Amino acid sequence: MAHIKLHNEELPGIVGLFDYRTETAQPMSALAEVLLRGPSSLSSGEREIIAASVSYWNQCHFCHTSHAAAAVAHLNSGLPLIDDIKAGLPNTPVSDKLRALLHIAHQVQGNGKNVTEADITAARNEGATDLEIHDTVLIAAAFCMYNRYVDDLGTWAPGPNEAYAEMGERLAHQGYIKVLEGA
Amino acid sequence: MAHIKLHNEELPGIVGLFDYRTETAQPMSALAEVLLRGPSSLSSGEREIIAASVSYWNQCHFCHTSHAAAAVAHLNSGLPLIDDIKAGLPNTPVSDKLRALLHIAHQVQGNGKNVTEADITAARNEGATDLEIHDTVLIAAAFCMYNRYVDDLGTWAPGPNEAYAEMGERLAHQGYIKVLEGA
Repeated sequence: MAHIKLHNEELPGIVGLFDYRTETAQPMSALAEVLLRGPSSLSSGEREIIAASVSYWNQCHFCHTSHAAAAVAHLNSGLPLIDDIKAGLPNTPVSDKLRALLHIAHQVQGNGKNVTEADITAARNEGATDLEIHDTVLIAAAFCMYNRYVDDLGTWAPGPNEAYAEMGERLAHQGYIKVLEGA
Repeated sequence: MAHIKLHNEELPGIVGLFDYRTETAQPMSALAEVLLRGPSSLSSGEREIIAASVSYWNQCHFCHTSHAAAAVAHLNSGLPLIDDIKAGLPNTPVSDKLRALLHIAHQVQGNGKNVTEADITAARNEGATDLEIHDTVLIAAAFCMYNRYVDDLGTWAPGPNEAYAEMGERLAHQGYIKVLEGA
């Protein structure tokens, strides 16, 4: 049970919190929509992998599994991707650029002082643009918010990967604003 | 100099980033406006103290000093409040409720698993409502995003407290949406 009395205890993770406080849900879901589904030279699948990785490093089961399931839906890759993200993607073909951006995201997950000029140069050497570096840092920073919000208020989350497959489809194909309206 | 090439290198901290990427700036400033200036049983001065404290714990000089300056403007307390927040408010009269909420915010700043039922009970015993606990957790979580965004992209920040006085007045009395429009 969450630390506070939600309007609907059956809604998991951030869904119950968005239902509880729509005034903050609106800009939070609008930010996720721009970052993960807005126009970008990074695919939505790549951006969801960054979001799911940061959430895993922050030990947020709900956010990790739902965003990894969204990556599955975008990439049509099958549910094993969810656990492959946890392991650092040993079995998934990803570009060297995405690996360099994931390293930057991992630095951001730690704290605000970790990203070095060498990290930026390494990403640029793999072809990353300034806007891609900006968006990677902001996705990682934003999930440091979403993850804390979900877990520090003690919300509940379904366990198995399979329970997130439908949510992943909805996040990928209907988006974050739509999910909010349906809550 | 920031890690990426901004449109205007003279704009400090998050102001230069908001100017660089208006699509993400819009929901980020809308979230700050609701959390820090929207209707609430916590005063804006109290909420800015929470935001400034989290930013200090995250070692984000720009966010700490600008939000502490906004608290100064709301509370009409004078610039020494900025350093008093760093020290845990030994010289500022604040309610026991706010001290209990600041403890929760400190737990959130650490990670997503730190807030305990005992922390929640302690805040409730000082009169905190569920909505005040919710907003405290979300302010703390949101500043874990803003602080990382500002520092992991290597933005510059003015040094002395006095340089933030005018910004604090604008944030307090014109708000976060207005500041964005002026960027």
